[in-house]
Amino acid sequence: MHSFKELVTQFTEKFKESHFPAQPANLYEPGTYFLEIGGKRIRPVMCLMGNELFDTIQPDAWHVATAIELFHNFTLMHDDIMDKAPLRRGVPTVHTKYNENTALLTGDVMLIVAYDYLAKINPQILPRILTLFNRTGREVCEGQQWDMDFETSQTVKLDNYLHMIELKTSVLLAASLKMGAIIGGASEGNCLHLYEFGRNLGIAFQIQDDYLDAFGDPEKFGKEQGGDIRQNKKTFLLLHALEVANPQQKSRLLQLMEENPADKVEQVLAIFRECNVDTWARELKQSYLDKAYQQLEAVAVTATRKAPLLELAEFLVAREH
Amino acid sequence: MHSFKELVTQFTEKFKESHFPAQPANLYEPGTYFLEIGGKRIRPVMCLMGNELFDTIQPDAWHVATAIELFHNFTLMHDDIMDKAPLRRGVPTVHTKYNENTALLTGDVMLIVAYDYLAKINPQILPRILTLFNRTGREVCEGQQWDMDFETSQTVKLDNYLHMIELKTSVLLAASLKMGAIIGGASEGNCLHLYEFGRNLGIAFQIQDDYLDAFGDPEKFGKEQGGDIRQNKKTFLLLHALEVANPQQKSRLLQLMEENPADKVEQVLAIFRECNVDTWARELKQSYLDKAYQQLEAVAVTATRKAPLLELAEFLVAREH
Repeated sequence: MHSFKELVTQFTEKFKESHFPAQPANLYEPGTYFLEIGGKRIRPVMCLMGNELFDTIQPDAWHVATAIELFHNFTLMHDDIMDKAPLRRGVPTVHTKYNENTALLTGDVMLIVAYDYLAKINPQILPRILTLFNRTGREVCEGQQWDMDFETSQTVKLDNYLHMIELKTSVLLAASLKMGAIIGGASEGNCLHLYEFGRNLGIAFQIQDDYLDAFGDPEKFGKEQGGDIRQNKKTFLLLHALEVANPQQKSRLLQLMEENPADKVEQVLAIFRECNVDTWARELKQSYLDKAYQQLEAVAVTATRKAPLLELAEFLVAREH
Repeated sequence: MHSFKELVTQFTEKFKESHFPAQPANLYEPGTYFLEIGGKRIRPVMCLMGNELFDTIQPDAWHVATAIELFHNFTLMHDDIMDKAPLRRGVPTVHTKYNENTALLTGDVMLIVAYDYLAKINPQILPRILTLFNRTGREVCEGQQWDMDFETSQTVKLDNYLHMIELKTSVLLAASLKMGAIIGGASEGNCLHLYEFGRNLGIAFQIQDDYLDAFGDPEKFGKEQGGDIRQNKKTFLLLHALEVANPQQKSRLLQLMEENPADKVEQVLAIFRECNVDTWARELKQSYLDKAYQQLEAVAVTATRKAPLLELAEFLVAREH
């Protein structure tokens, strides 16, 4: 058994190997550049942990983990184009450093290379893995589409946002665990519990992310406070506030979003607090975390085998704030 | 046994079925729009023919054919963004009718849906098909990259162009035939001959395309004559002319490309004729066609089974000009 952190170190080291041929350099070099930007490598490690929950880590788990991380980077490279993001982790995005055509085509080939890792696995489990990988891939695209749709929509409800987050973030975490579990020979029931663990954990993570952006200690969180508020992002907090606010509070909120005064963040936060949005968000996060733990509890293996997954949950969601 | 034209009709009809869910409409509706623009559906039909060369058409061949056509449309949708093409087949491209983000994300999900059709096939042949599909996909991206690189390069040689065409056009034709052959239970040797038939046919097709653009009868060809010349496109003809021209002819050619006079097409064509580029191109096309026929000849099945493939070659390359 390996701890979460041990697996992160192992995967990070192994993932440094070259994934692309040398030529055409203008196609593959930007791919290597992007992968070297780094990242927490949480999704591939979840695949390894899903495997090790049931069995020693199989070579197939490394292939699938690599495919997952390449897929994730493909989505990031294309999302950066769509979001016109100049930086990722403090360095220029591919479309900024090179150009949009490069980011488009290099992203495309990165997705295909991801599928090439899948093609290496045991043919007996390939159809199940491939089907789940494809479904998840489609869902992530759907999540990105809903996210873009919501930017210009005035009628987003909390349920819509929850569904979007599920597609854009949670299903890949859930599927990474489940693919590992399939490789580990888990029963369909255990796979399902593990998937639901990942899905609920992902939602709890996103609620926390929204919460910390508004109420977190900027020193500990490492981001400027209220960035989402400044950009009128339709977060869990804003959507809930708009649903529970009284008419005066609601009209003040809408006015602040329209007029963007200098003290907008403070004023919006005051309304959030009046509406108890902070307490509500902490409780909502906890309720998803509880659901996640219940699902993990239901997986039919000994508690000691689950320790790395609890360590992961702690790392992702129970962050200090 | 079915003729090439019968299979085109059958596939075109079957491919009209919906390939996408209804929601999010902004993601999937542009995909349906693009597929409804139509096309000759040559690649998927080549998969069906590759199968039927060896056996009756299997359900798997329809899945793989569908995956191939979706992959092809994914490349077209993204190429249109990269080439800033306003129209395809006379109607607005996806990035023109909707926007670039849509064409990007809808293309992405179309590729994933292509892989979803592959996931349906017999697990026994899935690894071989998936590996070939991935290799071909990477090569098509590489071909597109070389094509973009060549636009701004002054040192493109005929061999480089040939390699680019092979990757961008021929390998998908070749792989479509081979995937069908694998489904039909063909031996590795027969698969290879069929692949080489498709690869050489594809190159012959592209040489003819370049030739017709310059020397074809615009009435029969359906395109304005000399479009490639006007745009200084590095075609087979231009690259060969630059290699065989004497110093005066070469400097006239380069001057015409630089200055773009009103009678540029006529003047360039005159130099092409002085250098016997027209004869050379016809002979080069014929040499690839001969290689293609030799490879088809070597496939160990009766001549009658090969009739649809000869019909296809006739349709693609032996066009009237």
